Amino acid sequence: MSHLTINESRFLKNLADLSRIGATADGGVNRPAFSDDDLACRHWFEEKAAAAGLTVLTDGAGNQTALWQPRETSRPKILVGSHLDSVPNGGRFDGALGVLAALEAVQTIKDSEMAIPFDLEVVNFTDEEGTILGELGSQAFIGSLTSHKLQQPRGGREPLLRGLERLGLSEESCLGCCRNPQDYGAFVELHIEQGSRLEKAGVDIGVVTGIVGIRSYWLTFTGEAAHAGTMPMAARRDALWGATDFVAAARQLANGRFYPGVVNCGLIEVQPAAFNIVPAEVRLALEFRHGSETELDQFESALMALANQTAAGYGLQVAITAADRIQAAPSSLLVVSAIEEAAERLGLSHKRLLSFAGHDTQAISPYIPSAMVFVPSVNGISHNPKELTHAQDCVNGANVVLHTLLTLTNRLSG
Amino acid sequence: MSHLTINESRFLKNLADLSRIGATADGGVNRPAFSDDDLACRHWFEEKAAAAGLTVLTDGAGNQTALWQPRETSRPKILVGSHLDSVPNGGRFDGALGVLAALEAVQTIKDSEMAIPFDLEVVNFTDEEGTILGELGSQAFIGSLTSHKLQQPRGGREPLLRGLERLGLSEESCLGCCRNPQDYGAFVELHIEQGSRLEKAGVDIGVVTGIVGIRSYWLTFTGEAAHAGTMPMAARRDALWGATDFVAAARQLANGRFYPGVVNCGLIEVQPAAFNIVPAEVRLALEFRHGSETELDQFESALMALANQTAAGYGLQVAITAADRIQAAPSSLLVVSAIEEAAERLGLSHKRLLSFAGHDTQAISPYIPSAMVFVPSVNGISHNPKELTHAQDCVNGANVVLHTLLTLTNRLSG
Repeated sequence: MSHLTINESRFLKNLADLSRIGATADGGVNRPAFSDDDLACRHWFEEKAAAAGLTVLTDGAGNQTALWQPRETSRPKILVGSHLDSVPNGGRFDGALGVLAALEAVQTIKDSEMAIPFDLEVVNFTDEEGTILGELGSQAFIGSLTSHKLQQPRGGREPLLRGLERLGLSEESCLGCCRNPQDYGAFVELHIEQGSRLEKAGVDIGVVTGIVGIRSYWLTFTGEAAHAGTMPMAARRDALWGATDFVAAARQLANGRFYPGVVNCGLIEVQPAAFNIVPAEVRLALEFRHGSETELDQFESALMALANQTAAGYGLQVAITAADRIQAAPSSLLVVSAIEEAAERLGLSHKRLLSFAGHDTQAISPYIPSAMVFVPSVNGISHNPKELTHAQDCVNGANVVLHTLLTLTNRLSG
Repeated sequence: MSHLTINESRFLKNLADLSRIGATADGGVNRPAFSDDDLACRHWFEEKAAAAGLTVLTDGAGNQTALWQPRETSRPKILVGSHLDSVPNGGRFDGALGVLAALEAVQTIKDSEMAIPFDLEVVNFTDEEGTILGELGSQAFIGSLTSHKLQQPRGGREPLLRGLERLGLSEESCLGCCRNPQDYGAFVELHIEQGSRLEKAGVDIGVVTGIVGIRSYWLTFTGEAAHAGTMPMAARRDALWGATDFVAAARQLANGRFYPGVVNCGLIEVQPAAFNIVPAEVRLALEFRHGSETELDQFESALMALANQTAAGYGLQVAITAADRIQAAPSSLLVVSAIEEAAERLGLSHKRLLSFAGHDTQAISPYIPSAMVFVPSVNGISHNPKELTHAQDCVNGANVVLHTLLTLTNRLSG
């Protein structure tokens, strides 16, 4: 088992072949969910998986699964995969790498004729990127999709309904296709990092300890409008002073006490908005991310205290209203340690890190023990035709998936 | 001469009578330039000045002058006054106090039958407040009004033309009515402070050493848009970080090295403006004021260096474009010292300060030795029906004007 590796040339040829579907002139791919090229990918995947001897099914949300059942077993399945859709004019690796590595790993295990006591299921989730709704397939798969969410898809109702129709699906079929989480023992997803931490650290493999939760708020600092000449500086209640001090201090919190959490103030609006009037009101959009709900709670408390403190320093009021909230999705230590063991066995350097972007794993991990494997993105570029992960890193990632599956089968049968 | 004082009851009755013209229910006045009530004020002033034995004239810009010529003289005249127009729903003291104090002071000197060797001219300038153009009368008076300015009045072309027509005037008459500055030896203007420095310091009289110049710029900080999750904090080039640090550091410059200069950032705009995108570009409206062009030059250099420094600290670019510029108008030391001597003689406490708002003196002082007298505004409130200056402070101001005129006649004849 320790010497088993994927079939590199088959894997890289598959990657190259798949890149031709929806290829753009600048080296990227354009395969939004339910587009012609997304459908072509699905067809390609179905043929490849069937040719490898796997049982291919499409569920009511369009998720494609390719099952290998080495023997009759009542044990839970191990799920592995990602998504084949892309953002408009995206890159070749985001999602596709994870599906092809999963297929390659399962095919390698199958070809090796090892007698593992688990079913392995490769998955291609529908619409991870959110052209339509975002993690549509993985939410439907796990049963967290709601009709409320289907009423307000970010891509619009019409594209959702038209897209489902293209696959012969409906809202009802999406809501009715959820699996029983008890049937799955683990989920592992390989993905490009979409950041530059691994590249900068010179590390082969990222072991994702969690996908960050995201909380966002509107902070409204209120002072008093005044003549920007006659009102002495010391007597001003300038709402922008509180807001700008907050931006600086929030950055320091993220860089210090709450590292590696991140904070962003992406929007700021001033009233009355004139050269010669001291700002009376400033609305600030605050978003922060961290790896667990506990850390998010603490980060939030510190940021809110900071907002009150910077406001009070200038005699301002601050009103805080919630805008949005996405739960943190910590990884399963079972899967994290399996990934680390796999990397060790392959002689690959690895480090633990958080995922600061969303992935299908986010939907799955509250219900099935899950973790992700990251491989380096050149210059951290993603969602861009320039997105690149070197072939060796793709191969490394697929081998880590392979050995993670083997380790998991060992552990889960223990 | 040292015991000469104004006729308090006459002066305060005039102030009360004038306050009834355009009076609003909340205790203020509404007398925008060229309105019915502005015209009623003009009529009232003409009658009062004529009744006092002064020669009343209206020039081509609507400026009213009331001349007292105690004897045949070839010496330059001394000019004293302010404006009777108000902002919409303004207060009773802004402008009116200065015109009535001038009238009272000249009448007092005339009644005293002192044989002073100067002509004294009381003036009511047209449209100081800028309902139409701003310092329209004083600019026309001194010859700095241009046809270009008349083409772009802030209140609109139609109101300008209709307003002038109501007084039988025209653009041509405005441009043709300028005086020869050589005919005037000095100008003094009494005004309410419109701020709270005197009240807070418990001082009777403000001696204005200059009207601040105003410079304004757009600063555009440019960084790079990025994913607010995946881009590590340390690798961000967040345009808002540079802009907010600049706001804080500019405040510190104004409070420290450039005190009593003031700075305002009244407007800030972010691109792309989303919760989850690191700001790529921030436009910041910067305005700063100080008492002389030299100080403004130094303040500007320091602020521009600061902008470059805060931008560089985060790997940003900053582009700086000029928006507007109003020259500083330093007072004449001749008039400043005459005001101080007058206050001393009357036993009134006084302090030197800058005017951070514009006044007719700003237009006049580059051409005629000028300075202003300030009296306290209760709570610093102005351009508001709640505007209030206590009767004793009004009287103090008028007496200072009276003795400033006497001191100036002494000095200028020396």
